[in-house]
Amino acid sequence: MRVTQALISAVQTRPDAPATVDQDRQRNWREVGERVARGASALRSFGVAPQGRVAVLSLNNDHYFELLFAIPWAGAAVVPLNTRWAQAEVAQALADCQASVLLVDAGFAQMGQALAAQLPGLSLGFIGSGACPAGLVDYEATLSTSPPMADASGSGDALWGVFYTGGTTGHPKGVMLSHTNMMVAALTWVPTMHFAPDTSYLHLVGFFHIAGAQPAMALTLVGGTHVIEPKFDAVGAMRAIAQHRVNYCLFVPTMLNMLLHHPEFDRYDLTSVQHCEYGGAPMPDAQIALAMRKLPTWRFIQGYGQTEAAGLVTRLEWDRHFGEGTANKRTSAGCAAYGIEMRIVDEAGAQLPRGTVGEVAVRGATVMLGYWNNADATAAALRNGWLHTGDGAWMDDDGYITIVDRLKDMIVSGGENVFSKEVENAVTQHPAVQDCAVIGIPDAKWGEAVHAVVVLKAGARADAASIVAHCRTLIAGFKCPRSVEFLGAMPLSAAGKVQKGTLREAYWGGQGRKVN
Amino acid sequence: MRVTQALISAVQTRPDAPATVDQDRQRNWREVGERVARGASALRSFGVAPQGRVAVLSLNNDHYFELLFAIPWAGAAVVPLNTRWAQAEVAQALADCQASVLLVDAGFAQMGQALAAQLPGLSLGFIGSGACPAGLVDYEATLSTSPPMADASGSGDALWGVFYTGGTTGHPKGVMLSHTNMMVAALTWVPTMHFAPDTSYLHLVGFFHIAGAQPAMALTLVGGTHVIEPKFDAVGAMRAIAQHRVNYCLFVPTMLNMLLHHPEFDRYDLTSVQHCEYGGAPMPDAQIALAMRKLPTWRFIQGYGQTEAAGLVTRLEWDRHFGEGTANKRTSAGCAAYGIEMRIVDEAGAQLPRGTVGEVAVRGATVMLGYWNNADATAAALRNGWLHTGDGAWMDDDGYITIVDRLKDMIVSGGENVFSKEVENAVTQHPAVQDCAVIGIPDAKWGEAVHAVVVLKAGARADAASIVAHCRTLIAGFKCPRSVEFLGAMPLSAAGKVQKGTLREAYWGGQGRKVN
Repeated sequence: MRVTQALISAVQTRPDAPATVDQDRQRNWREVGERVARGASALRSFGVAPQGRVAVLSLNNDHYFELLFAIPWAGAAVVPLNTRWAQAEVAQALADCQASVLLVDAGFAQMGQALAAQLPGLSLGFIGSGACPAGLVDYEATLSTSPPMADASGSGDALWGVFYTGGTTGHPKGVMLSHTNMMVAALTWVPTMHFAPDTSYLHLVGFFHIAGAQPAMALTLVGGTHVIEPKFDAVGAMRAIAQHRVNYCLFVPTMLNMLLHHPEFDRYDLTSVQHCEYGGAPMPDAQIALAMRKLPTWRFIQGYGQTEAAGLVTRLEWDRHFGEGTANKRTSAGCAAYGIEMRIVDEAGAQLPRGTVGEVAVRGATVMLGYWNNADATAAALRNGWLHTGDGAWMDDDGYITIVDRLKDMIVSGGENVFSKEVENAVTQHPAVQDCAVIGIPDAKWGEAVHAVVVLKAGARADAASIVAHCRTLIAGFKCPRSVEFLGAMPLSAAGKVQKGTLREAYWGGQGRKVN
Repeated sequence: MRVTQALISAVQTRPDAPATVDQDRQRNWREVGERVARGASALRSFGVAPQGRVAVLSLNNDHYFELLFAIPWAGAAVVPLNTRWAQAEVAQALADCQASVLLVDAGFAQMGQALAAQLPGLSLGFIGSGACPAGLVDYEATLSTSPPMADASGSGDALWGVFYTGGTTGHPKGVMLSHTNMMVAALTWVPTMHFAPDTSYLHLVGFFHIAGAQPAMALTLVGGTHVIEPKFDAVGAMRAIAQHRVNYCLFVPTMLNMLLHHPEFDRYDLTSVQHCEYGGAPMPDAQIALAMRKLPTWRFIQGYGQTEAAGLVTRLEWDRHFGEGTANKRTSAGCAAYGIEMRIVDEAGAQLPRGTVGEVAVRGATVMLGYWNNADATAAALRNGWLHTGDGAWMDDDGYITIVDRLKDMIVSGGENVFSKEVENAVTQHPAVQDCAVIGIPDAKWGEAVHAVVVLKAGARADAASIVAHCRTLIAGFKCPRSVEFLGAMPLSAAGKVQKGTLREAYWGGQGRKVN
């Protein structure tokens, strides 16, 4: 199965139905199909070779959506880059996957030019609206004069995309997803999430995130309508829902909270929405109750997944959020999505009894090919055919799992994953820092906030602001510490390892569920 | 993806939900899971080896359902045999795939014993109810004393089953379906056919048919309920629907007609049914109108598929059966099911423009591995990655295909495929027959009936009854001619080929759609 096949099917069965809505621009599937075949041709004229990599650094727009299909149509693999990353991180990813072309919108044109200066052989293309900046090739202009080409995507086992995620080792890792990974995940997504041809879906999550890219794939498979916002903004989201009669959306609980408490909430008619997926964490009872009261037409479904599994692993259905016998379900992440094989395993990979905490492991056609150019990380994650997710959880008698800990040293802040190691690497590059441990601490708005515990070199001086400013030159703003604490020495275990549990204790002591 | 994974998922997420209902016997998913793990162990004790083949010749029952999972759980492949076949045909299939074990119910015990006498090395197992006949090993008794074994099914590419279908060459061909074929087809089936965990499905089609086996797989994937009837019988079907509050069923139009016109129709409450798939042919307008009036809760969905594609290729949704703009849709077979890549091609495999008749071709993860031990037939069917279905059709602007002809010389009688060549082979073995051509002719009850046109040897004599009786010793009753016509000579083309078109003309002349 090839990703392009989803598009071919949408064009074949729903040619006149609305495919994409980007602000005032709307295209049907016939038009999108035609544009993808021309776009692939345009990419070839940019020098994109079969089996090459094409990176995209852009807020969401309809060009970006089309590229998820046009790049594989040209026979190459998509590398969608995190728009919140610092230039150094983007450069690292581009060099790692040896992308030959980088496509940017207006907001990233300047960073693109700086990157091209830094990375010889990198061509720059422009996929934004308005005038094409100097030194970039205009994708839209090239597309309009390029003849449509035949689908050059390969077999199902071919690489469709590389998604860079923060890594435990401090370097982003490129998750390699095949065409089959994405298509089977899309076939899983459709019935699990109740997608249908009349689904009108609001894209608020960046396409560089699997929670943005996978619904783009799944909804194309059924020929639904993609309403595309550049990024999340509470007013923009509400306006798009009301204007385009959106009936499906996806939020992280933090985003949903912003909507519910927004002063302009009552100005928009949000009753067209029938389904809302939320991810990243269970919704607190008070938030669910508020959402049910203020958004009575919305049925909420929780999704839990991972880039390495091409999307969904489990989902918590709406009818398990309330009513008799659901109290112990609505704090869970739900049960396996259709077609997903999942179990809780011990360190040796053996299945654990129900109720015992272990690691979530996943097997099957949605599991990634591996990490790009990183055999060690691949061997650590894929063992005996099972993907080891790094998430700690226990399973109840009905197959519902509750995530209790992250085995990987990771912080989830506003739906973004931040790996402690990556932040620690940045902090310890500061000339005054001797040692550093980064933990997640409770935060009312973001769920968790990045907190750095620092030991300075003997005689050296530095304040929190200088450490954060230093980090900003190396990593994305959302990964930088929100707070810095200075200690004379780290609490160490007998084996000499930093005792992060002790550091966290001061912040999480009385807060029930300890998430990091 | 492995077929056993569907069962594991049902057991994990729906342990206490009803899994199978066979007359008065009901089991939940936990019980079925336990029985499959013990059943696989029992099969091993019968001498079933990994990668071996286990044939089943039985009417539908809950044991048979479990075997669809227990046989692969033991690491072997299922060979479900047509219950309407003559002994000679069954023997041919068993010898062809070298099955080591044949499992039969009470009705096939005698044929099984005769086959075992004929085929050295074939063990016999009994999966019926009641006392186990002499010379057979009792599956149920062995299962009850066997310890559960670990799932020994292999990778997704491993062979899951071999389905024998009548062949154009006169010999049944074994369609090899992999685990992945079945699982991707099941993931396609679920959203296309609106399966859900609360689906309670009435199995009337034999598990030896892909239209029986594939819904068994797809419904297990979502943990629904299988209500199993031994075979189609109008009263049995109506009673089962009423008694078990069935909400989903599958009929061929002939079966549905029997229901609608049955004198006891009004005695049963059939209002629990929400969906009904029908297959094999479009429903005539008069029949749809009658069905809508007499079965107002039933939403009909037409499915068109093929064993070689592990199930569905296209479906015609209920809302395309009536209302504005659907007149040209409801005579079609619908559009591609989710995840299926389909096109209409010419003899060279090139895609044809809309409206032009060509061959239906299918590509993707649901396409069979090939025909068992038959490289020539495999090469003819699978060309450049595409499955050539042998069905002639044209596609409209919305991707809806209308089947206009069978490129294979095939008759569809009451939902069963009969290959002319196979019947001709049988007829011409009659000592008095010189030449024979078999065609389908219109039949009010069966759609088409098998009709033989015969030229006798000079001076020889035979009547229709003796020719039919002769065929009964060689092929299944449903394949035998319903009528025989004697001619002095066959109408031949300039090239010396029998002009079947001329023979059909007399019967189909004024009847619109010519189906054979």
